[in-house]
Amino acid sequence: MPSNDFTITRRVQFAETDAAGVLHFANYFRMMEEVEHAFWRSLGHSVWFHDGDGVISWPRVHCTCEYASPAKFEDELSLTFRVARMGKRSVTFEVDFHRDGLRIASGRTKAACCAIRDGAFRSIAIPDNVRCVLRPFVADQASAAP
Amino acid sequence: MPSNDFTITRRVQFAETDAAGVLHFANYFRMMEEVEHAFWRSLGHSVWFHDGDGVISWPRVHCTCEYASPAKFEDELSLTFRVARMGKRSVTFEVDFHRDGLRIASGRTKAACCAIRDGAFRSIAIPDNVRCVLRPFVADQASAAP
Amino acid sequence: MPSNDFTITRRVQFAETDAAGVLHFANYFRMMEEVEHAFWRSLGHSVWFHDGDGVISWPRVHCTCEYASPAKFEDELSLTFRVARMGKRSVTFEVDFHRDGLRIASGRTKAACCAIRDGAFRSIAIPDNVRCVLRPFVADQASAAP
Amino acid sequence: MPSNDFTITRRVQFAETDAAGVLHFANYFRMMEEVEHAFWRSLGHSVWFHDGDGVISWPRVHCTCEYASPAKFEDELSLTFRVARMGKRSVTFEVDFHRDGLRIASGRTKAACCAIRDGAFRSIAIPDNVRCVLRPFVADQASAAP
Repeated sequence: MPSNDFTITRRVQFAETDAAGVLHFANYFRMMEEVEHAFWRSLGHSVWFHDGDGVISWPRVHCTCEYASPAKFEDELSLTFRVARMGKRSVTFEVDFHRDGLRIASGRTKAACCAIRDGAFRSIAIPDNVRCVLRPFVADQASAAP
Repeated sequence: MPSNDFTITRRVQFAETDAAGVLHFANYFRMMEEVEHAFWRSLGHSVWFHDGDGVISWPRVHCTCEYASPAKFEDELSLTFRVARMGKRSVTFEVDFHRDGLRIASGRTKAACCAIRDGAFRSIAIPDNVRCVLRPFVADQASAAP
Repeated sequence: MPSNDFTITRRVQFAETDAAGVLHFANYFRMMEEVEHAFWRSLGHSVWFHDGDGVISWPRVHCTCEYASPAKFEDELSLTFRVARMGKRSVTFEVDFHRDGLRIASGRTKAACCAIRDGAFRSIAIPDNVRCVLRPFVADQASAAP
Repeated sequence: MPSNDFTITRRVQFAETDAAGVLHFANYFRMMEEVEHAFWRSLGHSVWFHDGDGVISWPRVHCTCEYASPAKFEDELSLTFRVARMGKRSVTFEVDFHRDGLRIASGRTKAACCAIRDGAFRSIAIPDNVRCVLRPFVADQASAAP
């Protein structure tokens, strides 16, 4: 369902490169998080969601990135984000990195819905108001059923 | 083959934490690289290997990390590294993160052996002298056969 | 000479915060570099300047930042860059950080013009073609005299 | 008063280098913070100091670094920390970076003693128990008088 993809443009900064002359592999994960947070903002939300007297957020359970071609300083990357799946207590995001129309990397993140209080994380079912906001964007609609 | 594991201790630094009060998830990948490079040094090598007139190094092909429990500022983590597999042109490393004997995360990296010249990476077969150095440490010995 | 200022907008990303809940102080220096590089690009240049068979760039000699008020996750900052001074062999840049019209930090960077070859840096006089490009933007015009 | 200096050894990691092949200039500030925190730990404290029902910490007011010579991947640096001055409400730290006995950089940090509650920072006089701990290490003893 490509129409539900969300894309930002992001230039590789000098501090993100390494002595091999390329974007350091760990920084793809930071970029994956940036496009995710931009997606939440595009919905009028924040990844930090105040719900009653607590905060709900999405700590990572599992992350992966596959690298096809390196990126260099000042490359302008296109980051395309989608919500691949929404379970009862977690969501799975995917991000494709393109440069000049060529896919250079792809990442996948599973994040758990958690209530955060006093620095402790407690896994919870995704609240209904959050499910409603995310549902139209979920690629695997069967996973998002009420 | 636990005897071939290689372990370092690494304290979580303040700049590595985030506003959720925990070690930011992307920094586990930096730590996975740190223990890998420490492993190479323990063999008297560097991950940057000068071979003839070029440099051989190991760009990442695929990385993954699974998070079981968060880490906090000043936590002293134990990072245990092993060479899971050595193919003709790539190696697979695994790292377990422990705190006080409890496993808090596990990562896996597949890296390709590449010749680097003028900023370009070219995949090559792992040179014999490197295979010899790594072979005793490979957990899956069948993968490391000459 | 405010008309020569160059401004970009930059949102604070989650990975840039720390466990105190604010933008980590070292990341202001990364942002100072980002606006500097955006300034070069706005002139149709790059901070990495190929000149003949070598590369000219601007390693830092001295950096400073003064912090007036913290910034938080998702704050939209305005970074205003100016070339304060241009000497024979170095330039001094200044960056002001504002949020909602309030100045929250100010930095200053002295960078030396260097020829880079084989990883070695050699201080050189700023080439004439670079002086010409920068001169109209220098706040202290006396320092920029030919 | 060299006997009050505090020194750690710190290897330059690959993710800390940049495409110029050297330790990125912003990472010196992260290292300055690391040796400061190691100093606090050497006193049996943490930079995060629980005092009554609040937390006391030391946000930066002003930071500076002067760079004399670049550092490269795997360089083993010696970071020497000292408390230059202790005022009523702030302290000034200095850090020298050496490699093989050669000073390659020097930094200076002024940090304000602050009570932190609900994410807000409030400047306070340095509590007596903290003054007592720091006083023997202050190079400018006149500044540390009770």
